[in-house]
Amino acid sequence: MSLNPKRTIAELKELRALTGDDNGAQRVAWTDTWLKAREWFASKLTALPVEHHYDAAGNNWVTLPGASEKALLIGGHLDSVPNGGWLDGSLNVLAGLEVLRRFAEEFNGKPPVTIRLVDWADEEGARFGRSLLGSSAFAGTHSIAADRVRTDRDGIKLEDALRRSGVEIDRFPESAKERANAAAYLELHIEQGPVLEKMRIPLAVVLGTKGVERHAITFHGQEAHSGSTPMNARRDALAAAAKLALEIRTIAKKHPDAVCTIGSLKTFPGIVTAVVGRCEATLDQRDLDAKILAQMYQEAIAASQRFAGEENCTVEWSRIWNIEPVPFHPQLIDLCDEAIRETSGTSLGNSPGASGKAHRMPSGPLHDAAEVSRSGIPAVMMFVQSLNGISHNKIEDTREDHLELSVVALDRLATKTATWILSR
Amino acid sequence: MSLNPKRTIAELKELRALTGDDNGAQRVAWTDTWLKAREWFASKLTALPVEHHYDAAGNNWVTLPGASEKALLIGGHLDSVPNGGWLDGSLNVLAGLEVLRRFAEEFNGKPPVTIRLVDWADEEGARFGRSLLGSSAFAGTHSIAADRVRTDRDGIKLEDALRRSGVEIDRFPESAKERANAAAYLELHIEQGPVLEKMRIPLAVVLGTKGVERHAITFHGQEAHSGSTPMNARRDALAAAAKLALEIRTIAKKHPDAVCTIGSLKTFPGIVTAVVGRCEATLDQRDLDAKILAQMYQEAIAASQRFAGEENCTVEWSRIWNIEPVPFHPQLIDLCDEAIRETSGTSLGNSPGASGKAHRMPSGPLHDAAEVSRSGIPAVMMFVQSLNGISHNKIEDTREDHLELSVVALDRLATKTATWILSR
Repeated sequence: MSLNPKRTIAELKELRALTGDDNGAQRVAWTDTWLKAREWFASKLTALPVEHHYDAAGNNWVTLPGASEKALLIGGHLDSVPNGGWLDGSLNVLAGLEVLRRFAEEFNGKPPVTIRLVDWADEEGARFGRSLLGSSAFAGTHSIAADRVRTDRDGIKLEDALRRSGVEIDRFPESAKERANAAAYLELHIEQGPVLEKMRIPLAVVLGTKGVERHAITFHGQEAHSGSTPMNARRDALAAAAKLALEIRTIAKKHPDAVCTIGSLKTFPGIVTAVVGRCEATLDQRDLDAKILAQMYQEAIAASQRFAGEENCTVEWSRIWNIEPVPFHPQLIDLCDEAIRETSGTSLGNSPGASGKAHRMPSGPLHDAAEVSRSGIPAVMMFVQSLNGISHNKIEDTREDHLELSVVALDRLATKTATWILSR
Repeated sequence: MSLNPKRTIAELKELRALTGDDNGAQRVAWTDTWLKAREWFASKLTALPVEHHYDAAGNNWVTLPGASEKALLIGGHLDSVPNGGWLDGSLNVLAGLEVLRRFAEEFNGKPPVTIRLVDWADEEGARFGRSLLGSSAFAGTHSIAADRVRTDRDGIKLEDALRRSGVEIDRFPESAKERANAAAYLELHIEQGPVLEKMRIPLAVVLGTKGVERHAITFHGQEAHSGSTPMNARRDALAAAAKLALEIRTIAKKHPDAVCTIGSLKTFPGIVTAVVGRCEATLDQRDLDAKILAQMYQEAIAASQRFAGEENCTVEWSRIWNIEPVPFHPQLIDLCDEAIRETSGTSLGNSPGASGKAHRMPSGPLHDAAEVSRSGIPAVMMFVQSLNGISHNKIEDTREDHLELSVVALDRLATKTATWILSR
């Protein structure tokens, strides 16, 4: 039997039944349910001619040795957010497993290049607020000191939760050993946005992951009685923040793929009878172009200062987190484009076949592929359409014909990439 | 000895020392500290020819019987918010006490009209969220059913807290008996706003208390991933709310004394990585003119619907509370104007004496005088300047020369009002 995309869907449903409940997927990293998912995954490997181990950061590696030691990596993550969806992360792993099975069968257990499937540890960062944990250890971009002190909401330390799952944070750097012979990295993922559904396209090439500037912005005005303080005597911190909440949209819309979001806004004292004396906002800005990202960040700072001045307030900025844009490998992007066109080019009415190119888009969300790419390994991702643009939620979904198509396209991309690896 | 305004200041300081701490006044109604303040107040009455009792709603009455049964009422409240100031409510009571002493002395215990000093119970509503509790029982505007179910943040029922202070909520309506023979009501209060300080005027006539429309407004959009959702595909509930937060200022500024405030704004899910799916705001609108208030309310509704439409959101309104404007008695307003001019007309450089009128302004904050006025008793209030417009805070303050001036002006107003009562 060759590639069987229906088996991938059946396995995704099996995993959902095993590790989900009425509220969705519960495979939060470093919990018993996550460990159960990994045990279930391991049980799928018994008939395959593979080596299987967990690395020093808890990443889960399955290796099908090939004629060449040069390795094609295919990745995903079995962990989910609490009350998550059935596809985010798991589709990647199980589609990768199907591709690995096909290689094993087609080449009688010895493909031309080594095929390695990786289930990254704690992609979501749902429990400790640190996403891409395992892949950053692999990539060597991780800082033990910064993460050791993290706690979950029950006060349990990250370090202790990892130890319970057999992982010692001090040994994280050893995960870098897995980079040996890695020649390319592929990752399939649901889009998690509305773009492909709106365009009626099943699959897209991902150009890279957008850089992110994430900041906390606090406007300081003057708390005052809402009844006794005339409008022209107010120093209303909310007014300054409201102006910024609108202005960031103007800043983003100058660029086709840029996004700017104020996701949280808090008012203090936050009571009906007081003018807002302090207003705290979070700003998240993303673009694939580092220059555009830097420009948007500067424009937001300038706007906030202008609005603070207009409202007789002051403003403070504090960086929460940032990451550079990570563009994927240009040749792998082209291979991914070919694989998508060969898979869906003529079979779907609104496919991009006519234009001669697959749809190409940056990823707003971060993915493990970004960490892999930062470590110097050529990488690319493929997106499959999401329904209603919703993920991290039990209603996250994708049409089953699209899921099947994505497994076929990933498999084609893997074949092309194996050839590319040998040609270098 | 005649009127002694310095004694009022000394007594205010005595009360502060007895019932405050490093964080300010702690005379929250129905607490032990509040009861201690009332005991202290009672101790000041021993040498006076007065009758003293608590009514069925816990209001604290001191009566100096006069030649006429017709009564001049002077009111205030000893209760404070937690961490409150030394003047809000207490100045009114202790200035009133000083005026009562002067009447007792000047007329050898028998003034031409009866003088009644009232310390209202629970003006602030700090513990159970129901302000003007005692005065609304007196005025007959109170609803037992609505208040019986209130609890404080520890889950203690209002009904039980009152009983502990000797007050049965079911007997509240009996407080209305105190209205017998009431011919006029006077109340001195700190401004609690920045207007008089900015104008460099110590005292003002209060024209009435503004009506209030207080509403909860919820915008419903669509929670979405901040990275994967293009700007033009968003239904951002915060954007709609931000537009409203700015528009209410335009709505208010059409009218000289109107105020509109969004004091609280909450975002859901309220995380840095999600477009705001739901945004809850509170709106507080005030004006002394009922037509203007109604117009502002309608304009805010229309604006919110327009913004919801623009942002592809929906909006819901829910009334939290409202009260009609309460204009004070025109003849008492004129007497108050005279009293202020006679007190401060020539003694202070920036006094309003030159224009021939005292400064007149509506009160944004509510006061017990509004409830008294609603019961049909002619009422008026006088404001004394606040420093920095701040109250409900330990830094609440007023210049001592202004405090002294306010006691003198209240005393003059009381004399004028007593004459007015006998002339009717």
